Amino acid sequence: MTRWKPNAKERLVRAALSLFRSQGFAQTTVAEIAERAGLTERTFFRYFADKREVLFAGAEEFEQHFITALDAVPRQSSAIDAAAASVEGVAIFLEERRDFARKRSAVIAENAELRERERDKMASLASALAAALERRGTDRAAAVLAAEMGVTVFRLAFERWIDDKSGHNLAQFVKESFAELKSVTAGGC
Amino acid sequence: MTRWKPNAKERLVRAALSLFRSQGFAQTTVAEIAERAGLTERTFFRYFADKREVLFAGAEEFEQHFITALDAVPRQSSAIDAAAASVEGVAIFLEERRDFARKRSAVIAENAELRERERDKMASLASALAAALERRGTDRAAAVLAAEMGVTVFRLAFERWIDDKSGHNLAQFVKESFAELKSVTAGGC
Repeated sequence: MTRWKPNAKERLVRAALSLFRSQGFAQTTVAEIAERAGLTERTFFRYFADKREVLFAGAEEFEQHFITALDAVPRQSSAIDAAAASVEGVAIFLEERRDFARKRSAVIAENAELRERERDKMASLASALAAALERRGTDRAAAVLAAEMGVTVFRLAFERWIDDKSGHNLAQFVKESFAELKSVTAGGC
Repeated sequence: MTRWKPNAKERLVRAALSLFRSQGFAQTTVAEIAERAGLTERTFFRYFADKREVLFAGAEEFEQHFITALDAVPRQSSAIDAAAASVEGVAIFLEERRDFARKRSAVIAENAELRERERDKMASLASALAAALERRGTDRAAAVLAAEMGVTVFRLAFERWIDDKSGHNLAQFVKESFAELKSVTAGGC
């Protein structure tokens, strides 16, 4: 019987991220991750299907944050305001995870397979947001457009936040990017 | 030595599409496609790396149409107008390929691997459009936003065109979807 290990999942994520950064994702094995975390490979596989999933373990929770934030928006709000409120809600939740987000993004940027997996995650998020908007009564076209705009603004704001050295928070970048979206759509740029 | 076969590539595409539709993508082999086209497997592999690529053989040309249309837009136009002109240009080119587009979409909708490949194609298109807008002098944020909106509007208009039974053309759906984008972004829905 395996003894219960305190924070095993978190230790595995930290160990994996550190190894991916120092020696590359492709070059890192599950055995090395487990060893670095002071755990067994068997324990690793109790939490993750493979080393790639270490980086996507929070994907479901991530998507759920958007939906929860969206569901809290008053029904009278327009689709785009609802999408914006959802993205802002997630921004607040992510704010304290900036160091992790930055390291994770650096690993993903280096590997084509991971970039593809991240793209799928964002596509799935857009579909989930569109479906949640439709449940509020938004028609399909407006729901798809508002959801895609929300995800695009999130990606852009996230990219800025990751690169930022001036101490702005993610919610500020989200507001700024939404304002730019409105200006671009109106033909202002 | 293989003799030159007239329209070999086109015959292979037609044969593949017909088999994918009648018996499913997963169940169809390259041998069957070649046989249906009256060609050899060896000829098949002169044109396509595998059966999936039959459905994506036009991806590069597709992307190039967007870029060519975008490059023809006067420099003074706003980023969103340039993106709209690009999508409308492609709509005109696609109009005569509706039957093929409809059949191809039906095959892709049925298979997760193909849907993922199609998503990658659209993501690559968005990056290429954003890069082309940046070359025109649009700043990165506005370029990313306008490109993503262009691709989203294209997807929405394409979906409507594929489903349409009233004889509207793709360019009309593109114009309509851009108008909806403007209304949604302005908070009108």
